[in-house]
Amino acid sequence: MTLEHRPMTRETIRVGVLGASGYTGADLVRLGARHPAVEITVMTANAHAGKPMGAVFPHLAELDLPRLVRVEDADWDGVDAVFCGLPHGTTQDIIATLPGSVRVIDMSADFRLRDIATYAQWYGHEHRAPELQKEAVYGLTEHYRTEIAGARLVACPGCYPTAALLLLIPLVEHGLIEADDIIIDAKSGVSGAGRSPKESTLFCEAGEGLSPYSVARHRHAPEIEQELSRAAGRDLVINFTPHLVPMSRGELLTVYVRLPGGRTAADLRRALEERYAAEPFVRVVPEGVVPATQHVRGSNHCLIGVFEDRVPGRAILVSTLDNLVKGSSGQALQNMNVMFGLDETTGLEQLPMFP
Amino acid sequence: MTLEHRPMTRETIRVGVLGASGYTGADLVRLGARHPAVEITVMTANAHAGKPMGAVFPHLAELDLPRLVRVEDADWDGVDAVFCGLPHGTTQDIIATLPGSVRVIDMSADFRLRDIATYAQWYGHEHRAPELQKEAVYGLTEHYRTEIAGARLVACPGCYPTAALLLLIPLVEHGLIEADDIIIDAKSGVSGAGRSPKESTLFCEAGEGLSPYSVARHRHAPEIEQELSRAAGRDLVINFTPHLVPMSRGELLTVYVRLPGGRTAADLRRALEERYAAEPFVRVVPEGVVPATQHVRGSNHCLIGVFEDRVPGRAILVSTLDNLVKGSSGQALQNMNVMFGLDETTGLEQLPMFP
Amino acid sequence: MTLEHRPMTRETIRVGVLGASGYTGADLVRLGARHPAVEITVMTANAHAGKPMGAVFPHLAELDLPRLVRVEDADWDGVDAVFCGLPHGTTQDIIATLPGSVRVIDMSADFRLRDIATYAQWYGHEHRAPELQKEAVYGLTEHYRTEIAGARLVACPGCYPTAALLLLIPLVEHGLIEADDIIIDAKSGVSGAGRSPKESTLFCEAGEGLSPYSVARHRHAPEIEQELSRAAGRDLVINFTPHLVPMSRGELLTVYVRLPGGRTAADLRRALEERYAAEPFVRVVPEGVVPATQHVRGSNHCLIGVFEDRVPGRAILVSTLDNLVKGSSGQALQNMNVMFGLDETTGLEQLPMFP
Amino acid sequence: MTLEHRPMTRETIRVGVLGASGYTGADLVRLGARHPAVEITVMTANAHAGKPMGAVFPHLAELDLPRLVRVEDADWDGVDAVFCGLPHGTTQDIIATLPGSVRVIDMSADFRLRDIATYAQWYGHEHRAPELQKEAVYGLTEHYRTEIAGARLVACPGCYPTAALLLLIPLVEHGLIEADDIIIDAKSGVSGAGRSPKESTLFCEAGEGLSPYSVARHRHAPEIEQELSRAAGRDLVINFTPHLVPMSRGELLTVYVRLPGGRTAADLRRALEERYAAEPFVRVVPEGVVPATQHVRGSNHCLIGVFEDRVPGRAILVSTLDNLVKGSSGQALQNMNVMFGLDETTGLEQLPMFP
Repeated sequence: MTLEHRPMTRETIRVGVLGASGYTGADLVRLGARHPAVEITVMTANAHAGKPMGAVFPHLAELDLPRLVRVEDADWDGVDAVFCGLPHGTTQDIIATLPGSVRVIDMSADFRLRDIATYAQWYGHEHRAPELQKEAVYGLTEHYRTEIAGARLVACPGCYPTAALLLLIPLVEHGLIEADDIIIDAKSGVSGAGRSPKESTLFCEAGEGLSPYSVARHRHAPEIEQELSRAAGRDLVINFTPHLVPMSRGELLTVYVRLPGGRTAADLRRALEERYAAEPFVRVVPEGVVPATQHVRGSNHCLIGVFEDRVPGRAILVSTLDNLVKGSSGQALQNMNVMFGLDETTGLEQLPMFP
Repeated sequence: MTLEHRPMTRETIRVGVLGASGYTGADLVRLGARHPAVEITVMTANAHAGKPMGAVFPHLAELDLPRLVRVEDADWDGVDAVFCGLPHGTTQDIIATLPGSVRVIDMSADFRLRDIATYAQWYGHEHRAPELQKEAVYGLTEHYRTEIAGARLVACPGCYPTAALLLLIPLVEHGLIEADDIIIDAKSGVSGAGRSPKESTLFCEAGEGLSPYSVARHRHAPEIEQELSRAAGRDLVINFTPHLVPMSRGELLTVYVRLPGGRTAADLRRALEERYAAEPFVRVVPEGVVPATQHVRGSNHCLIGVFEDRVPGRAILVSTLDNLVKGSSGQALQNMNVMFGLDETTGLEQLPMFP
Repeated sequence: MTLEHRPMTRETIRVGVLGASGYTGADLVRLGARHPAVEITVMTANAHAGKPMGAVFPHLAELDLPRLVRVEDADWDGVDAVFCGLPHGTTQDIIATLPGSVRVIDMSADFRLRDIATYAQWYGHEHRAPELQKEAVYGLTEHYRTEIAGARLVACPGCYPTAALLLLIPLVEHGLIEADDIIIDAKSGVSGAGRSPKESTLFCEAGEGLSPYSVARHRHAPEIEQELSRAAGRDLVINFTPHLVPMSRGELLTVYVRLPGGRTAADLRRALEERYAAEPFVRVVPEGVVPATQHVRGSNHCLIGVFEDRVPGRAILVSTLDNLVKGSSGQALQNMNVMFGLDETTGLEQLPMFP
Repeated sequence: MTLEHRPMTRETIRVGVLGASGYTGADLVRLGARHPAVEITVMTANAHAGKPMGAVFPHLAELDLPRLVRVEDADWDGVDAVFCGLPHGTTQDIIATLPGSVRVIDMSADFRLRDIATYAQWYGHEHRAPELQKEAVYGLTEHYRTEIAGARLVACPGCYPTAALLLLIPLVEHGLIEADDIIIDAKSGVSGAGRSPKESTLFCEAGEGLSPYSVARHRHAPEIEQELSRAAGRDLVINFTPHLVPMSRGELLTVYVRLPGGRTAADLRRALEERYAAEPFVRVVPEGVVPATQHVRGSNHCLIGVFEDRVPGRAILVSTLDNLVKGSSGQALQNMNVMFGLDETTGLEQLPMFP
């Protein structure tokens, strides 16, 4: 596929949404429908084909949207960009069938891991579109902006990796933390588990309680390692332990790091502040302020906090975002803005909603 | 006060927010800061005077807002409109001191009741600005639009009355329900009780549980009665029983009504659909769809449902909205749009956020 | 079946639990395992046959319980009583196969409706054990104690009917309310919907929100009508409108009634206080106290409140209980105590858990 | 104070509850009122003196309890044991005034730190009863049983320390983890913050969100260090980072540890299983099972999980309990059982409540 992919500025971007019946799809529509340059022209949801979106998500019933169709019945004619919110593993087959002129912003995990052997190990099957994988750009906007601008296929990071990497890449790159001793205690709201009915995400199971899950075997670990290894220039292994929190949206990572001799938490804070000073969506909170998921709910923001540890030579770092926005649909739209030469904040100016 | 108050169209409306440290104030800023014609130039919060808004509401820290000041230190010069989110009872004194050129959109209860004797009875003290009360317009936009356009002082309805009256006024006006037999079972999220720490609204008290409160003595009852009596052309007394629900935002009223001979639920549905066909924020949901607070969260929408009862001659009506938006700050901005000749939906296009 | 069923007092009651993998089954085990006269000897859960109970409900892992078996593999030898927590519609077949010596305490809906035509209308199929239905006793302990003591098959009321009938039967019996004008606005926690994964009971769907459901067609309506009609001596139709509340446990009914000429809310209060003065689990709260689900959580209590309405001639009544305890497993054990001649509170003395 | 404090067995223990109006007090009454050997004869709550307990905690209204009195009006005559649920800092004065014959089980922080200089540093004032401090026994039942049996004053551990120390003491004692590299990421429900109204624990603030708090300065850190240092035989400093979780009850610690050369997670598991094999309330869950707060809610249980980390040479440990029971009132009663020669599980057999 040698098509040239230049950033372009145009009045309307005609957009398709694959897998519109999941939470990620719904939030993409919530934001995309109010994006001044976006027109949603195709929406697929195989289990709901033929229905209006309002039948699946009543909160979106007032919008004038195309009916849901099966993915094989979608008409790609005139479509400029496609957002994929399909379940992991199904995206690679479908994307391979799209016209080459359609830019793809994939919110699934299918193209995040560059090494297809690692993919096979963690996702349990051989990658079925290795050629596409080669051209995929990792869609962490703040760190791959140039590559994203020219990409046809952008693999948006997972929600946890987004929060982890925005925090850690600058620190690893500058050697400000011991890269072999990174412990990520991650907490997520339940929407990260999707809308398919499962016992573990029922209100009575996930409510009024908290538990770790996928201990030492969550698929976002190799993704974080891929990018941190790249930043470090050598292979890293990290601790990554996610927990399920009784809230719908939001994600917060508490990261425990060891500092190289002579380094202090203040050095980390300064490096992060400098790195993100010009970024519209990433902010290091002032000393004494503690980031909370409540402060980013519904927005495309990522907040970062830096704290001195009482243990000599250690620091405590915090990163929080809304898993459905900056951790998924918001970042996807941010990437679309980059790919189509728009101001990066277009359509993403919503302030956090609290309470 | 004989100042002429004409609707005007202008580029920027300079806005003050009185009582910016409550939930209503925060949501007004969330919406107002993104309103294309609004510039927030004054913000008061006596207990937090001197602080930036971000110190009180970290989710708004990135905004370029004026510092919080004491209300007596506010500079009203050049201010076009003021939103009051002050506690009930304190608004009337302060509004009386504002320059006559400032239009006032009051979100407190101080000017909602036209009869100051009723006010004294329900609020426990004599009204301290009866002259201002006389010129106050009741700010239920969909039913007082013309009066609001020309008003200097708009008294925005309470959250419960907004939901109740949008539903019931058309039905009472047209004699489609027995106006002496209206039972309103109301359910609200906890944000309706405000941000002042109280035992009853602690997480451990209000969470994982439900209870009625203010049974037969909630202050929104006389407000609903005032407007329904006006619609009926005679004095009405209603049942109004609120309940506290373990959620932050949202309000839903289930209303039990008796139908005059020959009338059916379908007649009610038709009347409501016709009445609100052209309204941007009020929608009667289709038959078979059940309104839920989840479907309006964060938006300025009000959803209405009509159901036949199994009991002959009765119907079940449902009305739901976000108490902080359509029930407070959103409706206030909607009124501002009307008062200043803007398109009524300006700055209020946010879609509901689900989940 | 002409077996004689005498109440008996004995040291140990050998108990089977059919359908132990649901929330009702779990709560029955929580209470039953600490009941001094109960030994659980058989537990069935077809989808989990072969597993220990702790694999299905880790909170019960420490108990020394029999392994789960398929219902067809259960050994009823020596079993004195069986609790059925099976899905509605499946119970009647299975109960018919049990030895006649086993007493059955059914927590499903299969034997609650005496009229099998009404059953067929509401449950969508002909009753498959009409002979058993004839001998079934309605298990509302406080009102059918004598019949329960001698019964072989007890059909425990639904959770909503328990709360509604404890409140309303005495009032209807004594003509203290207009029986043709009863409006029941019911609110329930999510556990009432069971443990089978469903979209509507996911954390992200049921959380942070409230909605009515099954409006004018909930199956507990005919059950309430059956018993109130019996109390009134004529056929009644009621309004019954349930709502789903974002909490796991608990149920609260707000009931709107009209009073016959000359009657007051105080008369209702007095009648209820007298009726339940000697009952260990039903309590009329003092004037000024508002019942809340938080006050009964985890206990076998039912709290009742009586309030004067502002509307002349009307009253507001409240009834609350824990849907899994007094609304299901607790009442089932209470009935077992009655059937086996034990003190009725045995094993049910747990106090409510708050917060 | 040279009074001899022998364990004794007797029929009834007459008990006083100081500070009965907090959540800890309420849960002590919930459990104590059903304890077969306990009679509650005195209850204090200065702000509610004169009221019945049911006016403060309606869920306990049915109990036959003494009226609440001011602490200075309490009659200690005949009282055998006192439970203190007073705010930190106020306990030491009051306990000093009690008759020497009264045994004291303190649930506040006042006597937990043996070193009064450390106390002054972390609690902001000099200790006012240093003599009493000297005789205080640290009430971690499983590790100080003998000392507790003979103590007059038992200082029950904080909720976090209980969960941390049950997990870590055996590992530190046996040198199974690197004691200088212990990272404790702690998560707690909101009830840990008490019943006094505070903005941060309002439903709308703590709900639908998660945040760290008291980062690197929580008062439970020195308490954990005190006991781990003792186990290690040298001074340790730990990382301890608590988070506020939107649930009422429950606490879970995820602990990240480094293993000495040659050690594996399996060694840790084995050591913990052996250490707690005979303990009624502490259980190491089997491999593959993940502890959750839902599995201990309302019970006196502590569950421990051991997981291999993907990072070579590291392990992930989990400890969970109900902060109001095993983390406070339950452990206090357990200590009372030890002090009075009763079976340790008496009155504490309640199973966890799920959902």
